[in-house]
Order: sequence, then structure tokens, then C-alpha cells
Amino acid sequence: MIKITLPDGSVKEFTQGVTPMDVAKSISEGLARNVISASFNGTTIETTTTLTTDGALILYTWNDADGKKAFWHSTSHVMAQALEEMYPGIKLTIGPAIDNGFYYDVDFGDKKITDADFKAVEDRVLEIAREKHEFKMRSATKAEALELYKGNEYKTELIQNLEDGTITFCDHSTFTDLCRGGHIPNTGIIKAMKILSVAGAYWRGDEKNKQLTRVYGISFPKQKDLTDYLELLEEAKRRDHRKLGKELDLFHFSQKVGQGLPLWLPKGAALRDRLEQFLKKAQKKAGYEQVVTPHIGQKELYVTSGHYAKYGADSFQPIHTPAEGEEFLLKPMNCPHHCEIYNARPWSYKDLPKRYAEFGTVYRYEQSGELHGLTRVRGFTQDDAHIFCTPDQLDAEFKNVIDLVLYVFGSLGFENFTAQVSVRDLNNPDKYIGSVENWEKAEQAIISAAKDKGLNYVIEAGEAAFYGPKLDFMVKDALGRSWQLGTIQVDYNLPERFELSYKGSDNELHRPVMIHRAPFGSMERFIAILLEHTGGNFPLWLMPEQAIILSLSEKYENYAKKVSELLEIHEIRALIDNRNETIGKKIREAEVQKLPFMLIVGEEEEKNGTISVRRHGDAGKSNETMSVEQFASLVKEEINKTLKQF
Amino acid sequence: MIKITLPDGSVKEFTQGVTPMDVAKSISEGLARNVISASFNGTTIETTTTLTTDGALILYTWNDADGKKAFWHSTSHVMAQALEEMYPGIKLTIGPAIDNGFYYDVDFGDKKITDADFKAVEDRVLEIAREKHEFKMRSATKAEALELYKGNEYKTELIQNLEDGTITFCDHSTFTDLCRGGHIPNTGIIKAMKILSVAGAYWRGDEKNKQLTRVYGISFPKQKDLTDYLELLEEAKRRDHRKLGKELDLFHFSQKVGQGLPLWLPKGAALRDRLEQFLKKAQKKAGYEQVVTPHIGQKELYVTSGHYAKYGADSFQPIHTPAEGEEFLLKPMNCPHHCEIYNARPWSYKDLPKRYAEFGTVYRYEQSGELHGLTRVRGFTQDDAHIFCTPDQLDAEFKNVIDLVLYVFGSLGFENFTAQVSVRDLNNPDKYIGSVENWEKAEQAIISAAKDKGLNYVIEAGEAAFYGPKLDFMVKDALGRSWQLGTIQVDYNLPERFELSYKGSDNELHRPVMIHRAPFGSMERFIAILLEHTGGNFPLWLMPEQAIILSLSEKYENYAKKVSELLEIHEIRALIDNRNETIGKKIREAEVQKLPFMLIVGEEEEKNGTISVRRHGDAGKSNETMSVEQFASLVKEEINKTLKQF
Repeated sequence: MIKITLPDGSVKEFTQGVTPMDVAKSISEGLARNVISASFNGTTIETTTTLTTDGALILYTWNDADGKKAFWHSTSHVMAQALEEMYPGIKLTIGPAIDNGFYYDVDFGDKKITDADFKAVEDRVLEIAREKHEFKMRSATKAEALELYKGNEYKTELIQNLEDGTITFCDHSTFTDLCRGGHIPNTGIIKAMKILSVAGAYWRGDEKNKQLTRVYGISFPKQKDLTDYLELLEEAKRRDHRKLGKELDLFHFSQKVGQGLPLWLPKGAALRDRLEQFLKKAQKKAGYEQVVTPHIGQKELYVTSGHYAKYGADSFQPIHTPAEGEEFLLKPMNCPHHCEIYNARPWSYKDLPKRYAEFGTVYRYEQSGELHGLTRVRGFTQDDAHIFCTPDQLDAEFKNVIDLVLYVFGSLGFENFTAQVSVRDLNNPDKYIGSVENWEKAEQAIISAAKDKGLNYVIEAGEAAFYGPKLDFMVKDALGRSWQLGTIQVDYNLPERFELSYKGSDNELHRPVMIHRAPFGSMERFIAILLEHTGGNFPLWLMPEQAIILSLSEKYENYAKKVSELLEIHEIRALIDNRNETIGKKIREAEVQKLPFMLIVGEEEEKNGTISVRRHGDAGKSNETMSVEQFASLVKEEINKTLKQF
Repeated sequence: MIKITLPDGSVKEFTQGVTPMDVAKSISEGLARNVISASFNGTTIETTTTLTTDGALILYTWNDADGKKAFWHSTSHVMAQALEEMYPGIKLTIGPAIDNGFYYDVDFGDKKITDADFKAVEDRVLEIAREKHEFKMRSATKAEALELYKGNEYKTELIQNLEDGTITFCDHSTFTDLCRGGHIPNTGIIKAMKILSVAGAYWRGDEKNKQLTRVYGISFPKQKDLTDYLELLEEAKRRDHRKLGKELDLFHFSQKVGQGLPLWLPKGAALRDRLEQFLKKAQKKAGYEQVVTPHIGQKELYVTSGHYAKYGADSFQPIHTPAEGEEFLLKPMNCPHHCEIYNARPWSYKDLPKRYAEFGTVYRYEQSGELHGLTRVRGFTQDDAHIFCTPDQLDAEFKNVIDLVLYVFGSLGFENFTAQVSVRDLNNPDKYIGSVENWEKAEQAIISAAKDKGLNYVIEAGEAAFYGPKLDFMVKDALGRSWQLGTIQVDYNLPERFELSYKGSDNELHRPVMIHRAPFGSMERFIAILLEHTGGNFPLWLMPEQAIILSLSEKYENYAKKVSELLEIHEIRALIDNRNETIGKKIREAEVQKLPFMLIVGEEEEKNGTISVRRHGDAGKSNETMSVEQFASLVKEEINKTLKQF
């Protein structure tokens, strides 16, 4: 008999040789029907693997990330089989599951796969799937493996790097692949499959190697799931922030300025400013003080902070001076500068906490292939702040920061989020700077704050920054995609390195604790996510312009101006379109710009001192006529629905 | 007979051999009494030099910069005489006039001069002065000159670099110096003289050479002038922005971050922000749009702009990437980025002018010896904007910018200013980029705008930037010192280099004209000057905090909070000091912080719902009791006195 521990902590006894599927059946028939993968003592196994020792077993269904991974990895085998049948002579390389689906990198030789061919491959994959082939793992010697892949230099290279005795194959139907395992019980549960795209990819990611064809696919246990997913993809394309950013004139990338370095156009800059003012206002109430620091610092500053040793080689390289032999670095973070601000004068415990906030623009080198719109850039502005407090104040400060983050999310329509507490990897103590005692203190402070604030959180070992543990917020957007937004980090390390101190009530010098935090994370990434979340229809309070006055003809220019002045008194941001264009064209352009309200003014309106109000997207409805004051009340009411006081 | 042209354009005939002093006498006895120096055909001469050809003569008095220069240069001779008498064996090197006084660099050998010795030297200088020695120039051969300075390696080196036949000496009293000329008629008009300080200075400014003692002095034609000047120096010391910046907790320099890179502390950052918001508001009314651009750009960007060829070698050196071989530069100016924003889309003449504004932080390398507080830094934020307009719009745009600059000066209490139009040096056409035709157009536009706006302006040839002519504002501060503040520059060059275009009414593509402008110049330098101008007592609207609530004891904490909330509703920025300290200590600290109003709250005030108002600097007066509403009206009234609407 062996003892199997289940995720709920319960321990059950089974005969040696039991399989995960047997265990599932022993729990319930329903579970057995849904189990598609398993792990034993942390290692992915098959549902058919025989268990011979005591250990911890986890059973995965489609609803688990690991379940999806097995599902997609298995589909990748089936797609490879179909490709090999349909394109004889191609060379397979690797085909892993990814976050959304899977891919297989293939050397098509003199053959080629195009969009037109996808349908036939998908049909063949589903045909094989319906035959309900089981995936069977078996061991092979290095010699056998090399023999099987004679002529395939890619697999040969992979096998040569493996140790004899550790090599395994997976067989299903007529197909065999070099494979470490982790499959679904049989191909029959693959009910829908789609090839999403093909792209070039270098063998082993090295541009000196041959370029292969990466075939991206995805599969599902129900046809409906695929339909939903494809609709989501279409909507995501419509909401792509790079597309919307261009349409709404928000930002621009110039090849001359450099890739990954966004230029904020007037409307985008106004949006940014609005977000900054919003957060500044809340931060002021929460006792933060704004500071301003330069975008470079002496290399020595980052040697002191430890960043240089950790990241120096992979960062933008030092800036030399023409004389005096000085070396500066573009600042990759604001904390060292804020430590030096703290150090500008001595502090007493009565002065703490000090909360220094800065919309600090930092620069981090990313390879050009990694850059993506505003979500992955080389220069970005953090809504950064550093709190310097006594150890006694840490809990309260951490909770205050959580309150602020939740306020920000609420005001911007992110209602669906979870929190992740990132702690040390206890097996890798060398990865981290600072004492074990401090790390334990910090981790406890975060977990207790998350608990007290009622956050829905998980603890992830090994995900901490090198200088301290952290709490990250994962937000789900309108399309159900998860984004990491907002971070709060405790740091016992920089105060040591910068020798920060305060005089305690005991008249002795003590080290303050530091909290790093950024509710948005970065302005660039946050705006990108907000664009995709809202499709560009930002909350009304945030819109760079909340309305546009459209004159029926140039004759009403003066009245339009008068309306604009009235709106300004009511603090409503409005544009005027007095161009000599048709009202139809003006409305169409305002719709593309997603302006929430169009205020049409003509003879009737001028005579009565009114405006004719049309809402964005209200194509069918008739306009509503009202006074500017009535309109102002309407706007205020709508804003108050989303934007509360902090 | 020779023809002498005077500065008013009049031409007079004199006998050959006439002296400038003779000419002065021929005009008036009063002028003759005041003339202390002269120039002929652009060359400085003595008042006793005989004129033998036709030419243009300028006569200088103490009120002319050139007159002061001759006065101080002459005093430098007398001081050198006194030093040589009192410290036999010292070696004289050079002793020029400077902006305020003069210095003489002396090798004192094994001797030393200290503060205690100054008085004796000054006395001896005045003694010599009273003897009314005339300064007499004479030529000497190189051999004679070298013989005179045998044993003085400094003068020897100077003489060796001169061509034989051009060497002149100046004699007065028993003293002779190697000298190019330009003296006052005699020592008798030196009525007051002071040695200001001594400092180390390397021979020829090269740190590899021997260190000499630089003796700084100043002199005046009246004792009262010296007294006034020394008082001014004292006041300038009290108002030194570096001292005030520290006292008022505005900014800080950290050796770790790097010299010349200010860290803005909370109060300084709030002050900066206030100034930025003030200008943003006016700029919004003037039709500017804010943009945001990164602090680096590809080297190529500055090759395109021409900045790299011009300044590259003397700037912060390129930033390399760890891979991909890219090169970036810290941006030394914002214009190339704004050009790329303009280039983000095509424009029609109907869309122009585009006015892009940015508080853009730029970085320029300065040698550490050149750095000075906030006035000479390595990183600073320009209140920058670039206007892209059609040639037809240039005049109007230029005038609008002048209006904005004058509004800024008025709101900040700078009432005393002149303008300088900097145009090409026509003798040095190679210094400038761009066509002669464009330069002429641009220079004309500036001069006509300055004229139309009634500015008090001068035209300075050779002072233009390499890319275009400009209008600079020179402001006099409360101590009578001149500062260059605010610049407006026309640029026909960058639009060419960045191939900017717009579609004209003729449907053809045209080049826009560009205006660079910055009313403050840089936030750092402007704040430094404003600090010295106001002594830290900024206009009320600008103060980071306008009031501080001082509780008589911790008992009144709640009432203090209530007052603070009321003030916030009235948009008055107030601090609270609830510390357990005496009211005397709290007032003293608030005075140092130059907080305009102290609002004292205790039992009486809480009972009556009032505050006891004390003004900054009102040491003797009794406090005034009033309601918060009354106080708010008072503040608003005072603000409206200086801060008008744009």
C-alpha cells in the first residue's frame, strides 16, 4: 500500500501501481470524466502513470492552467502528426504549450504552409482526434532515439544534449515524438482546433540559426469554447491599444527617436496628465509629498543600491563625460534618488512616515524583439512612491497603500482582480539581498495586510524581487485577460545600503523600513491596458475632452465660443469644431475620436440659448435639447457615478 | 585737419594730434571732467592718445561699462604697485578688469597675503591714488621687455608670445607694467578701493601649472558707491539661492547622485509644480498643447538636427546598448522630439499653427568647476514649446509669445527688463546653418515684433544661436543685477533638416517656420533667480504653503484640523503644526520657513470659531482675530493684486 496526499491535505491509501485516473475514480465518477492531467510530488505525469511510492498527487481538469497545458501540448502532437502526413519530408523540432494554445516549430524544407492550407490541417487533426488514440510514454536509449531521428538535425541536437537513460518518447496513433510527458488521456476530448497563424522563428531563438516556420494553434474541449475564443481575439484586435492609440491620436513611435520610446501626442499627454492629477490628489490626501529627481545618477549610486551588480550588464550602458572621467547611468528606478532625498537631513521618529512620490520616468533596455506598443517599452513613467517608516508603522502603511490601490482600481472600472504575494524561493537563498530575519518580517507584514483588507490573494514562492517580497495586483480586463497592475513592495535592504536612519524615542539611531509602491505600475502600460479594457471609451472624468461643440455652419462660431466659455466655467473640457464641413462629417469624426458628447449648435440653439446633445454611439436616437447648465449637471452626475472621493 | 565721427553721427574737424580729452573739452567742460576712457575705430585707447587719422571716437564715463573697465584696470596697476612695495620679490602675472572690479594673479613665493593684510594694501593704494599719477603708455622692444622681467617667468612667457613691435608698457608713479592700454586719465579719481577676497588660481588656468594667488579688488570714484556695493554684496549673500534653498528645504545636491543634478525636496517640488501649472494655464489659453517625450533619443536624431556635429564632443557621451549596437544620447534639447511629433501625421495649412509645449528635462555636460547651485547645472527642465506655423503666421505668433513672456514677468514681480535681439555676425557666415535669405526673414520678424510690442531692446550682432536669430529678455532683480531670462527663437533650419511640411491652400507642400520659446528659460535657473529676487518671500499665489496653523497645545488638534479643512475648501494651502512644542518655537520656525501667515488656534479661537492671524515678519504687531472666511477673502484679495488672468 502507498499513501497518496491530495491537495486538500487528506491522505488516502492505495495499492502500489495505482494510476491518477484510478485515484480520480475512487473520488467520483464525475471527477474521473474531467481529469485530463496530473502531477506527483511536483512533477507532471500522465493520468495513466503507475504510482509506486507515497507522495502528493494533484489532478487537473480543463479549468486548471496545468490541465490546459496538457490539453494543448497533446494537441501539438496531433497537429505534428497531421503536418507530417500532409507535408512528407518536413522536419519537426519542438512543440510546446503556451499561455494561449501551443505552437510547433517546423522546418518545411522546400515546402510552405499558407493560410489557405490551415483548414485541411485542422480537419485532419480533428479526424485523428475522433479516433480516440491514447498517449503512451516509453523510454528509449540514446542510440534508439538518434536512429529514429536520423536526418533530422534538430531532434538529433536535442537528443545529444540529453543524458542516456532519461530519454522518453510519446506514441499515439501512428505518431511518435521525443517528449517528457504530460498528456491528456486520449485524443477524443479534443473537440475543436484552429491554426491561428504562422510566423518565422529561428532554431533555438538564435538569429544565426536557420529560420523555421512556427505554426500557432489552439484547441478546446467544446466547439463553443473555440467560437468564444475567436470572437475574443477579434475584439482584442479591435481594442489593440496600438490601433486605438493611433486612431485617437494618443501616442506615436518615431524610428528616428528610437523604438520603445513613445512620444505622447497632445491628447495622450492630456490623458496622462489627468491620470497623474487624479492620483496626485488622492496621494496628497494620503499624506504623500511630491519630489522631483533627475533621470540619471552616478554609476556609484547604483553600485551602492546593488542594482548595478545585478542588472548593469543587461542595461543601457554608462554615460561617460568628455572630461573628468565621470560615469552616469540612466535611472532604471527612482528608489536610490529617493533614498538620497531622505538622507538630505536627519529625521526623528516624530517626523515619520515620510512618503515621497514622483511620476518618475525610468529607462530599461529591452531587446527590440521584446518591445510591444506601450506594454513593453524602453522608457516609462512610474507612478512611484517610497514610504520611509518605523517598523511599528509598517502594517498601517501597507494597509493604507492597499486602500489607495483599491481606490484607483475602482475609479477606473477595474472591478475584477486578485492579489499575489511574492515571497522568497527558500531553496534559492543566494538570489536575495538582505537578512533572513528581515525577509521574514517583511513577508509577514504583507500577508497580514492582504488578509486584513480581505483581498483574494495567493502566495507565490520564488516570485519576490531580489531586494524584498511584494504584493502584486492581477487585474482582469473586459476581455477576461489578466494583467499585472499595481505593486507594493517591502524593502529592508536599501535602507541598509543607503545607511538611512532616524532617531527613535530612545534617542538612538534606527533603520527605517521602506515601501515601494505604484498603483498604476507604469503610465504607459496602464494606459495601454485601460485602452484595451475600455476600447477607448474611458470613464467620463478621464476623457481628454468630454464634449465637442459642432457648429452647423461657420455662422454660429460666436455662439459656439460662448457655449465653450460656459462649459469652461463648469470645468467641462470641450473642443469646438467650427470648420466649414458638413455636420455629418463632423459627427463621424467625433465618433471616431470617441468624444462622449457632441453638442450641436445652429440657428434654433442660438435663438433659445440651448445646445442639442448627442451621445457617443447613439446613432439611432434623437438629440436632446437642453441648457448648458442642464448639460453640466448631467455630466457631473455621470462623473460622480465612477469617481468617488478618496 | 582730421574728421572725427561721434556716436550721435555728428562729424567734427580737429587738428591732427588732437586727444580724446581735447575733443571732450571741445564739447563741454562737464564732459571733460567725467571722461575716463575712450575708443577709436573700435580700439580702446588712452584719453591722452593723439589722433592722427579720420575715425569714429567714443568717449566713456563711469556710467559706461567700458568706462568702469578702464577704471578697474587702472586700479589693478595701482594695487600691483602697492603689493610690490609691500611684498618685495613677489612676481606679478596678469591683472585684468572683470564684470565687478578686477583681480591680479600674483606669485607670492614664500610670502602670503591674508584678510588681515587687506586694509594696509587698500590704504597704500589710496595713498598712491591721491598723488594723481598719470598713466603713460610707451613702446618697448622685446629685448627691453624681457630684460625688465628677468626672473619673472610668467611675464617672460607672455612677452615671448608677443610679436616684436607690438609690445607696450604703462608707467605711473614708480611702477611699470606690461600693458595693452586703456586707462583713466590719472589715479586721482580713484576715491575708494577694497580688496574683496583672495583665491587660488592656476597660471593660465591650467591645473598642471603653478598655483598663484588671485587678489580680487574693486574701486569706485566715490566712497558712497563702495559702501552701497558692499551692502549689496551682503544682501546678495543673505539671498544666495543656495543658502535659501537649504533653509527653506527646497532642493538638495547629493554627492552620490552627482554634482549639478538637483534633487527637488517636497517644498521645492511644490513650488516648481505651482509655476508649471501657472504657465500651463496661460499656455492653454494661448492655444498650446502639452506633449510628453522621452529623455533620450537615437544619436541619429541629433545627427539629423545638426546638434551632434556641433556639440557632440563636449556633451555627455553616447549610451550604448548591451546588444544590437544602438547608440542613444541624453537629450540636450526638446526640439528634435517635437519635430518628430509634428511629423507623426500630415498637416494642412488649416491646422496650423501647432504649438507643442513640454516641461522637458534636458541634460548638458558642464565641467564641475562651472557648476553653481541651480543657475549652472547638468540637468534642467525647460518650459519649452515649439510653434510650427506658416511664414504668414510668424509675425502674429511672435507677438503672442512676447505677450505671454510679459505676462509671466508681471505675475512674478519682474518689472525691470530689457530685450536683446541676437542676430548673425555678418563677418562669420560659416558659424550658421541655413540660407542667408531665411536668416534675413527671421531677423526682420523678430525686430518688427519687438518694435510693435514697445520693448526696450538692443540688437547684438554675433549673439544668435547657430540655427537662428533670437530675442532674449534681460531682467533686473531687486539687487539691480541683470539675468538673462526667457528666450524666443525663430528657426528656419530644423524644419529643413526634419523635412517638415504642410499642404498649403495651393495644394502644394511647404515648409513651416518654427519658433522655440521658453519664458522661464529653465525651471532651475528661474527659481534660483526668483529666490534671490524675492529673498524667498515669493508672491503669495506661488508659496508652496500660504499659511501654517499653529495650535497652542495638542488639545486644539481637532480644531486645527477643522480650520485646515475649511482652508482647503477655499483652496488655501496650509500646514498644521500640532507638535508638542511651545508656540514661540513654532512661530520662530514658521518665520524661517517664510510662511506668509501664521494662524494661531487655542481655547479662545476654538470657542469663537476664529483664528488669530499673524503675518510673516510682523514681529511687533499684535495678531488679528478673524473668521476663516474673512481670512480667505484677505488671501484672495492679496493674490489678485499680483496674479492677473492671462
